[in-house]
Amino acid sequence: MSGVGTVTTQRAVVTGDGPLRLASGAELAHVEVAYETYGRLNAARDNAVVICHALTGDAHAAGLHEGAGRPGWWDGLIGPGRAVDTDRHFVVCANLLGGCAGTTGPSSTDPETGRPYGPDFPLLTIGDLVTAHRRLLDHLGIDRMRAVVGGSLGGMQALEWALQEPERIERAVIVAASGGLTAENIAFSAVARAAILEDPDFRGGRYLEQGVSPRHGLKVARMMAHITYVSARSLEDKFGVRRADPAAPPRLDADFEVEHYLQHQGESFLRRFDAWSYLHLTRAMDYFDPFAAHPGVRPTTRFQLISFDSDRRFSTEHSVRLRDELAARGATVEHAEVASPWGHDSFLLRPPGYHELVRAHLDGVLDPARPTSALT
Amino acid sequence: MSGVGTVTTQRAVVTGDGPLRLASGAELAHVEVAYETYGRLNAARDNAVVICHALTGDAHAAGLHEGAGRPGWWDGLIGPGRAVDTDRHFVVCANLLGGCAGTTGPSSTDPETGRPYGPDFPLLTIGDLVTAHRRLLDHLGIDRMRAVVGGSLGGMQALEWALQEPERIERAVIVAASGGLTAENIAFSAVARAAILEDPDFRGGRYLEQGVSPRHGLKVARMMAHITYVSARSLEDKFGVRRADPAAPPRLDADFEVEHYLQHQGESFLRRFDAWSYLHLTRAMDYFDPFAAHPGVRPTTRFQLISFDSDRRFSTEHSVRLRDELAARGATVEHAEVASPWGHDSFLLRPPGYHELVRAHLDGVLDPARPTSALT
Repeated sequence: MSGVGTVTTQRAVVTGDGPLRLASGAELAHVEVAYETYGRLNAARDNAVVICHALTGDAHAAGLHEGAGRPGWWDGLIGPGRAVDTDRHFVVCANLLGGCAGTTGPSSTDPETGRPYGPDFPLLTIGDLVTAHRRLLDHLGIDRMRAVVGGSLGGMQALEWALQEPERIERAVIVAASGGLTAENIAFSAVARAAILEDPDFRGGRYLEQGVSPRHGLKVARMMAHITYVSARSLEDKFGVRRADPAAPPRLDADFEVEHYLQHQGESFLRRFDAWSYLHLTRAMDYFDPFAAHPGVRPTTRFQLISFDSDRRFSTEHSVRLRDELAARGATVEHAEVASPWGHDSFLLRPPGYHELVRAHLDGVLDPARPTSALT
Repeated sequence: MSGVGTVTTQRAVVTGDGPLRLASGAELAHVEVAYETYGRLNAARDNAVVICHALTGDAHAAGLHEGAGRPGWWDGLIGPGRAVDTDRHFVVCANLLGGCAGTTGPSSTDPETGRPYGPDFPLLTIGDLVTAHRRLLDHLGIDRMRAVVGGSLGGMQALEWALQEPERIERAVIVAASGGLTAENIAFSAVARAAILEDPDFRGGRYLEQGVSPRHGLKVARMMAHITYVSARSLEDKFGVRRADPAAPPRLDADFEVEHYLQHQGESFLRRFDAWSYLHLTRAMDYFDPFAAHPGVRPTTRFQLISFDSDRRFSTEHSVRLRDELAARGATVEHAEVASPWGHDSFLLRPPGYHELVRAHLDGVLDPARPTSALT
């Protein structure tokens, strides 16, 4: 059950005071940001918690849209009495710049040409994603944030927030994330992008105007990425090597249950995501180098890093490295590895102890019952 | 330097005495097998060692083809004085049934129709691959084999050989292989096959006649699979996050060295491999269930299993499981895990101790200097 009840996605134009200048020097003259809020902004306007979504997420983090059966993607974490407690916090979640769920992105109309940006959309950094959302927070009249919370690419944004605005962010919760990708991380995304870029229906990037889309490439990209989001053990536990119809003869196309599952993941992704957004947001992750981008910044934010022992996308090693980099900048940082069988996707689920850790950090207290061995 | 010198690939028709009947009941009326031999068959005709190649290998395991600069794919292991010693053994390596390097496969001409088999080629089991090679050994007049040796899919064939012919195979060396795939193994191959099967240029499987090929899908399949063949550490050591041209602006297509490397792997694969063969041979691996296919067989073959600690395709767990299954059939089996930084591809390379283990097994002696802790 959803905790925050019925919600709607809102939109704000964040370029009212001028174009959004990107790290590359490029400018976007008109940027809209889709966002949702849960809970109430207090009179002091100092109880905001910003939720940052991951690669293919959206602004709908909690609650139910009118008539919908499924709550937002982080509904278990956000709500009255939940770890991100909407009785006390004013929660804001916005779709990413470059995304395809309401915020300006490569599939939006370029005001200069009247057609979709497509190949004309500028490359983004994670810094740019945060800059666009800073405009939203300014628009909402929020100066200081109690916390920024995110998982995966969302965690990378939370880190970037704290480095861009070291005085405005009290706490950051960075889950299953990284302060810089590995060769293997880039390799998997490179194959996903090659699948899209080299799909004949990419049409030199003009597919949006031609009424087609690189469905084949995007589907394969998602199927592959999905394997890296889950653990080998969870695939084994869920599907093993069971065939959908053991009595049927062997075949080359989908037969084993795990194959049907991946096909479903790939197909349903096509209904909700744009190939251009996939290219841009994965690429922003590849180039993420926050400490080089913010030399000398010594954030006063209190950081909590959480990793999952079965995560093979951003393993605990990523969090340990980030912890050391933050500590070297003089930051207060704690890291916990949570045991979970579900791999990278654990940040969306609820392995034992995970939500309790987030709650404790946001409450500003360490849970005395938490064993110190859980802290590395 | 190659040990066995200049070699040529030969071909044998193995259906002279009748069609090849497959496990499915289908028959192939005309089957040719491409093979190479190194060393000399002795007078007793009992010194043969069969080498089984992996998914995308071929018959050219050792030596140099006339005018070629690169020796066969397992040249380091096979030659005079090498672990598979051609001074003492008569070594035979043949291309797989269903392959595309000289042996009959889906890109061969169907004698019934005069056009490439394509979708008319029957599904194969690993048992069928071995059956075709048994015909070759019969053709060469070899009744007993001193050993069957293979890595990855090659190791699965070595296992199958020993179960099909429990009396004819003295020893088996099974490297980085498995007695049955996991959900994750199947998942990666399922994505690779989806990339091929759903490529518009697959043309319902008739691409061979139409002068096209599902290049996009096959390339993506190979790029993805390649990541799983190496270790995260070896990618990091080799490429890190270095960009090919650090002074150039960021871009969406290949920029990091690891991306160029994967692009090269994918492109060069297109020049040497056929999409249909990729579909068939990966699928034969998925369905491999050798102990169910050979109930009650108690092989007298002496088995050596070798796994590599960084292998994420067929981890040590696969070998441990296989060791236990073989032991339960009363077989003599030893297993060693070799430390190697290079992942699954280690079977093609030479991490310390690996070739020495193979040599010791083929010589029928245990190396007294080998620490027992290397044996699990």
